[in-house]
Amino acid sequence: RRRIAAPTGGTLNCKSWLTEAPFRMIQNNLHPDVAERPQDLVVYGGIGRAARDWACFDQILATLKTLEDDETLLVQSGKPVGVFKTHADAPRVLIANSNLVPKWATWEHFNELDRKGLFMYGQMTAGSWIYIGAQGIVQGTFETFVEAGRQHYGNDLKGRWILTAGLGGMGGAQPLAGVLAGACVLAIECQQSSLDFRLRTAYLDKQARDIDHALELIRQHTARGEAVSIGLLGNAADVLPELVERARAGGPKPDLVTDQTSAHDLINGYLPSGWTVAQWRAAASDPARHAELKAAAARSCAVHVRAMLDFQAMGIPTVDYGNNIRQVAFDEGVRDAFNFPGFVPAYIRPLFCEGKGPFRWVALSGDPEDIYKTDAKIKELFPENKHTHRWLDMARERIAFQGLPARICWLGLGERHLAGLAFNEMVKNGELKGPIVIGRDHLDTGSVASPNRETESMKDGTDAVSDWPLLNALLNTAGGATWVSLHHGGGVGMGYSQHAGVVIVCDGTEAAAKRIARVLWNDPASGVMRHADAGYDIAVATAKKHGLNLPMVK
Amino acid sequence: RRRIAAPTGGTLNCKSWLTEAPFRMIQNNLHPDVAERPQDLVVYGGIGRAARDWACFDQILATLKTLEDDETLLVQSGKPVGVFKTHADAPRVLIANSNLVPKWATWEHFNELDRKGLFMYGQMTAGSWIYIGAQGIVQGTFETFVEAGRQHYGNDLKGRWILTAGLGGMGGAQPLAGVLAGACVLAIECQQSSLDFRLRTAYLDKQARDIDHALELIRQHTARGEAVSIGLLGNAADVLPELVERARAGGPKPDLVTDQTSAHDLINGYLPSGWTVAQWRAAASDPARHAELKAAAARSCAVHVRAMLDFQAMGIPTVDYGNNIRQVAFDEGVRDAFNFPGFVPAYIRPLFCEGKGPFRWVALSGDPEDIYKTDAKIKELFPENKHTHRWLDMARERIAFQGLPARICWLGLGERHLAGLAFNEMVKNGELKGPIVIGRDHLDTGSVASPNRETESMKDGTDAVSDWPLLNALLNTAGGATWVSLHHGGGVGMGYSQHAGVVIVCDGTEAAAKRIARVLWNDPASGVMRHADAGYDIAVATAKKHGLNLPMVK
Ligand SMILES: NC(=O)c1ccc[n+]([C@@H]2O[C@H](COP(=O)([O-])OP(=O)(O)OC[C@H]3O[C@@H](n4cnc5c(N)ncnc54)[C@H](O)[C@@H]3O)[C@@H](O)[C@H]2O)c1
Ligand SMILES: NC(=O)c1ccc[n+]([C@@H]2O[C@H](COP(=O)([O-])OP(=O)(O)OC[C@H]3O[C@@H](n4cnc5c(N)ncnc54)[C@H](O)[C@@H]3O)[C@@H](O)[C@H]2O)c1
Repeated sequence: RRRIAAPTGGTLNCKSWLTEAPFRMIQNNLHPDVAERPQDLVVYGGIGRAARDWACFDQILATLKTLEDDETLLVQSGKPVGVFKTHADAPRVLIANSNLVPKWATWEHFNELDRKGLFMYGQMTAGSWIYIGAQGIVQGTFETFVEAGRQHYGNDLKGRWILTAGLGGMGGAQPLAGVLAGACVLAIECQQSSLDFRLRTAYLDKQARDIDHALELIRQHTARGEAVSIGLLGNAADVLPELVERARAGGPKPDLVTDQTSAHDLINGYLPSGWTVAQWRAAASDPARHAELKAAAARSCAVHVRAMLDFQAMGIPTVDYGNNIRQVAFDEGVRDAFNFPGFVPAYIRPLFCEGKGPFRWVALSGDPEDIYKTDAKIKELFPENKHTHRWLDMARERIAFQGLPARICWLGLGERHLAGLAFNEMVKNGELKGPIVIGRDHLDTGSVASPNRETESMKDGTDAVSDWPLLNALLNTAGGATWVSLHHGGGVGMGYSQHAGVVIVCDGTEAAAKRIARVLWNDPASGVMRHADAGYDIAVATAKKHGLNLPMVK
Repeated sequence: RRRIAAPTGGTLNCKSWLTEAPFRMIQNNLHPDVAERPQDLVVYGGIGRAARDWACFDQILATLKTLEDDETLLVQSGKPVGVFKTHADAPRVLIANSNLVPKWATWEHFNELDRKGLFMYGQMTAGSWIYIGAQGIVQGTFETFVEAGRQHYGNDLKGRWILTAGLGGMGGAQPLAGVLAGACVLAIECQQSSLDFRLRTAYLDKQARDIDHALELIRQHTARGEAVSIGLLGNAADVLPELVERARAGGPKPDLVTDQTSAHDLINGYLPSGWTVAQWRAAASDPARHAELKAAAARSCAVHVRAMLDFQAMGIPTVDYGNNIRQVAFDEGVRDAFNFPGFVPAYIRPLFCEGKGPFRWVALSGDPEDIYKTDAKIKELFPENKHTHRWLDMARERIAFQGLPARICWLGLGERHLAGLAFNEMVKNGELKGPIVIGRDHLDTGSVASPNRETESMKDGTDAVSDWPLLNALLNTAGGATWVSLHHGGGVGMGYSQHAGVVIVCDGTEAAAKRIARVLWNDPASGVMRHADAGYDIAVATAKKHGLNLPMVK
C-alpha cells in the first residue's frame, strides 16, 4: 500500500515551478489526510479520482519531471496521453475527465468503461488536482449563511439561530460554518455516532438532552449574542413539526431553516419517522425491504417539508440545501413543496453575479507560515471585507490544514487578480518560502452548467446550456492558466453537469504576473458575463462597474 | 432581404488579418452561392446557422472590426457575448455552439431554447465559419472510394464499378466522386428530377434507359478503362435484387456496393417498393398514413439490405454509408444486417489513424488564381501523392467555386503543417494576392466523438468518450489557432456527437509561421494519439514514425 504526499521545500523535482506545481498538487490530492481512499486513488465525492490507475499516476509524475516550458501534457480521464509543443504562455497541463457524448452519458455506460480501465470519474477538484479537504465545504456553507444574513438581517447574524438537520459528511460543516458566520445553530441528527464525531472534531459545540434543553440553550446564547452550535439527537421529521407547534405557541422561532439529511437517497440517507436506526440499517441492507423503506422515508420527508413550509409561512427564510427533499415531498403530494427556493438561486447566485466564488490557494513550500502571511495580505488588500476577516481568523484557529497548507475564501471580480498579483509579489520578494498555487472549485460563477444545482432556475431558462463552461475553459487556456480542466458529471453525477477548472501558479516572475492579471480577471468576469447574459441586474451592474466588454449587453 | 458576401481584396476592414479572416469567413458562410437559406442565416445541414440572429451577426462584425491583437471574442451559440484580454498568440475568437448538459441534450429542449432566441444549431462548419459548399462532400466521398480502391484493388479503380443508390443532397456527390477516383458508377435513383439535376450540373454523366442498357454501358466503359457515371431510374429495393440474380447468372458483378438513399428517415427518405413517387409524397404529407408508409419503407429496406448482403457473400466489398439502413433492416428481422461495416470503420478510420482528414483552405483575396497557385504548391510538396494530384486537377476542372475560392484535400500528420508553412511563405513573398485561411471539418481524426458515425465501433469500445474533442479544442487554443470552436450535435443531431473545429490564418508573418507549425502539427497528431490510445496499429506506427510523445503508448 503506497503512501503519497507532496514534496515540500524549495528544491525542484521538475524543470520549473509551473510543472512542479501539478507534480506536487496531484500528490497532495492523494495525501492520507486529504484523500478519502488514497489506496484507490479516490480523493473525495464517492469515486472522484486523481489518476486513472497507479501506472497512469506514475507516468504523470514521470512526464511532469521532464516537461519543458514550451510543452503541454494532455490528460484524458486520468491518463497521460500526449505531450505537445505549445509555448511559454500556454497551460502546462490540459485535462478532460469523464466526458461522454450525451446519449451515452449514464452511470451504466460510465461503469462499463471504468471497469475496463478505459475511464475515470474526475468529480470536480479530484481529477483536476486542486482539492484541499474539508475547508472547502465549511467555507461554502459559511458564505451561504453570511449571504442569508446579508439579505435578511442587515448583514448581522448576532443573536440569530439557524435550524437544520443532518450532520453527515457535508452537513457536519453546518454548525461550524454557522458559528463562524456569527449565528447559533440547532442541528437535528438521528445518529449519536454522527453527533459524537462532530463534537470530537469541534465542528459542534454542545449536545442538548432534549427539545426543551435545546431551546433553552438557544434562548440563552442568542440572548447573550453568542454564536454556539447545539446538536439534538432525534428525527427531523418529528422534531421540526414539534418546533413549529412551539413557535406557534409563542416559543422561539428560528431565523433560517434548512436541511442536509440525505433525502436524495431514500434507502441509505433518510431515517423514517418511528423507526430506530438499527431497523433502518437492517432494511437498507435487505433489498427485499427497499420498497417499504423508501415509502416510509418519503412519507417522513413530506412531513419534514410541510414543517419547513410552515416555518416559511411564519416569514422565516427557508431553503433547500441541495438534497432533493422538495422533490421527494412533491412526489408524495406536497403540492407547494417548491415554494421555498434552493440555496443556489437564493444565496449563491447573487454572489456569482458579482463574480464571487470559491477562490483557494496552496503553499507549495509546505510551510503554514506562508498561508498565514497570505491571510494577512488578504486582510490588508480588502480591509472593508469584514466577514472575510472573520473567516480567516476563525479558519486559522479552528480548521486544521490537510496536506499542503491551503486557504479558501470567496473573492469576486476585481479582487481575485489583486490577490494573485500580491501573492506573486510576495514570492518574488522572498516574503514567502515558495510559490503559491491558486485555483478554485468547478462550482464557480462562470465554470459550471448543472441544472439541478448551480444553474437551477436561471432567470432566462438557460439552466442546461453548457456553452458557458466550455468557453470558460477555452478562455482560461487562451489566457495562460497553468492547468485547465473540463469535466462532466461532478457533484450531481453522470448526465447532469459539465464544468471547468483552472489553476495558476504564482512563481514570482514577471511573466507569471501578466498571466495572473489576465486569468484571474477573465475567469470571474466570464461568470459575470454569463449571468449578465441571463438578465441578472446585479451582474449587469457588476459588468458596468468593472468596464467589461459584453457586446450584446446594453 | 439582405445579401451577404465576404469582402475581397487587400484592404482591411478590421485591425489585422487575424480578425479580418473571421470577419470575411462568417460573411462567406452566408454568401448566396454557399448558404442554403442565407435569409435565415442557415448555412447547411438543415438549420446549421452562422449566427444566432441578424442583430448578433451585425454585432459580431462590428466587434471584429475593433478587436485588438491581444483580445479574444467569445461567441456563445451564435451570439457575441464578451471580449477579453488575452495575448498575441491566443486565438482571436473562441466559439461554443449548441452545447447542452447531457440529460437535457434533446431536440425538444433545443427547440424550446431556439424558439426563445436563446440558442442556435451550429452544425459543424456553419457556426464555426469554415463551410465551403459542395466541394467538401465530393472530396469526402472521393477519399472514401480511393481508400476502398487502395484496400481492395491495389490502389487502382480503373475498370472497376461502384453500385449505389440515392442521388440526393449528399448522395448526388457519389457519381462525380467515383469518377474522380477512377471508377465507373451505377447509381439507382427513384426520382427523375434528381437524375435531371445531377445530369445538368455534370455530377452524373449519363442516364441508362433500363437495367440492360445500364449493364451494357458499365460493361463497355469498364472494358475500356473509362471512368463514367451512369444513372438508372428505379427503386433500389427492386433493382438490387435483380442485379444479384443477374450476377449469380454470370452477369457483371460490382466491385463495391453502398447506398445513400435516406433510409434514416422512413417518412421522407425511402420510396417503398411498388409505390409511385406521387403515392409516396401523398402518404408522407398525411400523418394518418405515416405508420403504413414507414412499415412499407422498412420492408423495402430489408429487401435492399438482403441484396447488399448477397453481394457481400459473393466477396464484393459492401459498406453502409451512414444512412442507418442496416439498423432498419435489422429491426425488420434481418439478423445479419450488421455483417457489412459502416464506411467510417471500413475506409475513413485507417486514414484517421495516419492523421489524415479534410484539410481545407480559402483565399481571402477572392482571387481564384491564389487557389490555383496553392494547388500547384500542394502537388510540388507531395509529388508522390498521386490521387491528390488527380483530385486537384479534376476539382479545378469540374467543381465551381462557391463564394470565396477554396480548396479541400485530405492531408495527414506531417503534411498539413508543411502545406500551411508553404502557403504562409507564398503570402509573405507576394506570390499570393492575400492571406490564406486554413481550416477543416469537425469530422476529422482527433476532433469528434460521434458513436453512430465517426467513432462507430472503436476498437476499445470508447465510441462515446468525448474527452478527445475537448482536449483537441484546448490544445488548439493553447497552440495559437486563430479561432477554435466546440460544438454539440453536428451531423447526427442533439445528443449524438461532440466535436471541435480549428481555423488558422496564414498572414505571411513569422509569428504566424510559428503558430502554423504548432497547430497544424498538433491537430492531426491529437487524432493519431486518440487512435493509438484505442489500440490501432496504424496509429501506433504513425506515432512512432513521427516521434510523437505518447506517454502510455509503448
Ligand atoms: N452543494 C450542494 O448542493 C450540497 C452541499 C452539501 C450537501 N448537499 C446534500 O446534502 C445532503 C447531505 O450530505 P452529506 O454528505 O452530509 O450526507 P450524509 O449521508 O453523510 O449525512 C446525512 C446525515 O443525515 C442524518 N439523517 C438522516 N435522516 C435523518 C432524519 N430523519 N433526521 C435527522 N437526521 C437524519 C444521517 O444520520 C446522516 O448523519 C445530501 O443530500 C447532499 O447531496 C448538497
Ligand atoms: N457522413 C455520413 O455518414 C453521410 C454522408 C452523406 C450522406 N449520409 C446519409 O446518406 C443519406 C442520403 O443523404 P442525402 O442528403 O443525399 O439525402 P436526400 O434525402 O437528399 O436524398 C436521398 C435520395 O434517395 C432517393 N431514394 C429514396 N428512396 C429510394 C429508393 N427506394 N430507391 C432509389 N432511390 C431512392 C431519393 O429520391 C433522394 O434523391 C442520408 O441518410 C444521410 O444521412 C451520410
